[in-house]
Amino acid sequence: MCVAPVGVAYRFSMDPLRFEEARAIVSERTRETIGQLPAESVPLDAAAGRILARDICADRDYPPFNRSARDGFAVIASDVANVPATLELVGETRAGEPSRFALEPGKTVEIMTGAPGPENADAVVMVEYSQRDGSSVTLTGSVSAGRNLIMAGSEATQGQCVLKAGTRIGYPSVAQLGTVGCADVPVYRQPSAAILSTGDEVLPIGARPQSYQIRNSNAHSLAAQVRRRGGVPRILPVAKDTLEDTRQRIEEGLSSDILLLSGGVSMGKHDLVEEVLADLGTELFFTSVRIQPGKPLVFGRCRDTLVFGLPGNPLSTMVTFEVFASIAVDLAGGAPSSPLRFQQAPLAEAFRHKPVLTRFLGARLEGEFGETRVRADRGQGSGDVTAFARADCLMVASDRRAEWAAGDLISVMPL
Amino acid sequence: MCVAPVGVAYRFSMDPLRFEEARAIVSERTRETIGQLPAESVPLDAAAGRILARDICADRDYPPFNRSARDGFAVIASDVANVPATLELVGETRAGEPSRFALEPGKTVEIMTGAPGPENADAVVMVEYSQRDGSSVTLTGSVSAGRNLIMAGSEATQGQCVLKAGTRIGYPSVAQLGTVGCADVPVYRQPSAAILSTGDEVLPIGARPQSYQIRNSNAHSLAAQVRRRGGVPRILPVAKDTLEDTRQRIEEGLSSDILLLSGGVSMGKHDLVEEVLADLGTELFFTSVRIQPGKPLVFGRCRDTLVFGLPGNPLSTMVTFEVFASIAVDLAGGAPSSPLRFQQAPLAEAFRHKPVLTRFLGARLEGEFGETRVRADRGQGSGDVTAFARADCLMVASDRRAEWAAGDLISVMPL
Repeated sequence: MCVAPVGVAYRFSMDPLRFEEARAIVSERTRETIGQLPAESVPLDAAAGRILARDICADRDYPPFNRSARDGFAVIASDVANVPATLELVGETRAGEPSRFALEPGKTVEIMTGAPGPENADAVVMVEYSQRDGSSVTLTGSVSAGRNLIMAGSEATQGQCVLKAGTRIGYPSVAQLGTVGCADVPVYRQPSAAILSTGDEVLPIGARPQSYQIRNSNAHSLAAQVRRRGGVPRILPVAKDTLEDTRQRIEEGLSSDILLLSGGVSMGKHDLVEEVLADLGTELFFTSVRIQPGKPLVFGRCRDTLVFGLPGNPLSTMVTFEVFASIAVDLAGGAPSSPLRFQQAPLAEAFRHKPVLTRFLGARLEGEFGETRVRADRGQGSGDVTAFARADCLMVASDRRAEWAAGDLISVMPL
Repeated sequence: MCVAPVGVAYRFSMDPLRFEEARAIVSERTRETIGQLPAESVPLDAAAGRILARDICADRDYPPFNRSARDGFAVIASDVANVPATLELVGETRAGEPSRFALEPGKTVEIMTGAPGPENADAVVMVEYSQRDGSSVTLTGSVSAGRNLIMAGSEATQGQCVLKAGTRIGYPSVAQLGTVGCADVPVYRQPSAAILSTGDEVLPIGARPQSYQIRNSNAHSLAAQVRRRGGVPRILPVAKDTLEDTRQRIEEGLSSDILLLSGGVSMGKHDLVEEVLADLGTELFFTSVRIQPGKPLVFGRCRDTLVFGLPGNPLSTMVTFEVFASIAVDLAGGAPSSPLRFQQAPLAEAFRHKPVLTRFLGARLEGEFGETRVRADRGQGSGDVTAFARADCLMVASDRRAEWAAGDLISVMPL
């Protein structure tokens, strides 16, 4: 790890890291920077996407009773070892009723899906395998013990932790929270991320730019990315290319948990961000990563705010957020880790690159089901928003491999 | 396709479909049911996740000028065919300034990333390959024409459609919208989805259930799923197991674009949903699909509302929404299609099943980068919310294959 001494004049000129190394540094430094996270409570219907702030325990056994998984007949399994078997029908239990029966050998109770099984029953024969005749039922399907009857406590026992603090709440977690009656969900406060674009050429999106000016699209795509990760974005006014304005805006951003700078981190002499960060005593952890797009990527810490200097090209900004800065949003939001999961998809056509950088390319998935193929769309490079807006995933070409044939598997990340 | 005649007494007993067939029917029937979709306008920062209601065109050429992709020196490429080459430095252009120069052979202009190139320049040599000496610069890197200089209009020309109506707005689309100055984004109105759980055993999540009762977790997980797809969920009070209450609640649900019923679609005699749907003249398109969980799945149409009868087991409810009902939310929301993209991941351990159904299993991804492995977590079956809440993807076992060895690729869908 390469840490520039605080207060020493430095250029953004450390050796570039491999992207896995850079990710590890972001994780480590974020962990040591964030303190105790405050929690709050939100209604269950607002909890999706948030991160649980404490362990959630089962309020009772699950299932709370021996639950029938089918409509059918509750039996002692040994009674139907040989079928057809005719049993005496002693009653019926619907879902939403307590069980009023204790089964004896040779007897059965009609039972509905979700209903509690009678005492002594250890299986349910599906209604499809039954013929009823008055008070007797002939069962034509044999079942082993436990079949179609989920025993009380087999999914979770009372007091057992069913969701851990740090879980990102997806719809399956919502189901679990609802099941145990958690109507108000304890979640961590969302981390704040200030977003600062820099440069005289950058105008607000509502403005009409001169031919040599561009709009501040990066701030809005970053805000969408922050929001998607569960953070709260705060878009600052664009910093002009003066020391004073750059310094003032960066200081404003330091009141957030995370400061995302877009632009101003390459080697040009008009890049003032570096100078201001140095002046403010920013501790730099790395300044370059061997990826494309996004090589000149700066990560540091200033007054307990994690600072990312993202390159200003739109694709570089978006990709470096997804691959690096997202880790800080996740961890500062209470997630215990922020792994980057690659799935694999076969290439629609051959791909080659110079294996000195890990490359992230906008790409499209084509076809459905098991026939999905991935096709890269390089467009005109890392400024080509139009090409990237057609993408539905990132294709990842490892720095350890040069060539892929059509049909070879390659890594993809959903957008 | 099997359509039961309206008004004829029917049971939910059509032949089960393969899941691809069932998906095609949901797409087709949704398309013929939804009319012209109303549009509205939202601020760019609220547009992520929404679906574009009209084509978005480039307001000018992109880039609007020949844009330098690097800090360096704008050149006529033939001047640096042999390096080192010493050129006369005639000026400097920063990003945010118009270009004031026209290059002649043997001359160069210092240029910053994002700045417009001088007239006649066709490439930029990176500053890393330069040595400056007063008014001359020696360049040590040769470049071909077009290198590091993105020509005006090469990404998009003025008036060109850069985002199509029907695009789901992700962060790359936000970047595109911001780039062309679209501060207020035309999007389709979000489709509404009523959610109705049925059964005397089902209580609101805030209630304290008796041992034989359960909480209405399905309504809340479905609401999270609807919201994630861009729909607006409306949770109805649980329908009691009487014809009157079931009918009243279902009629309430018919004021929404989509009605999601959870429970009440299996063969049990206390399932009243079927009877009420028939009474209301519901046209049924299918009643069973060869998948697990979720085989008894009903899809139909009643008074222009698309009706899904999802099985009541929590996993069945969630999976059948993701695989089938989500199509209706997507298409009714204005998406032109709703493909199911499977990626592949190698199995952490061997898997086998009886290949008569397509199986969806909660599963976990392990490891990072190219080493990601998938591991199924079957738990106690389709009622086991606790096991499913640990999952971070669905593993999909095709009905056309019985066995996979550890390390074999299998299909996965992110949750």
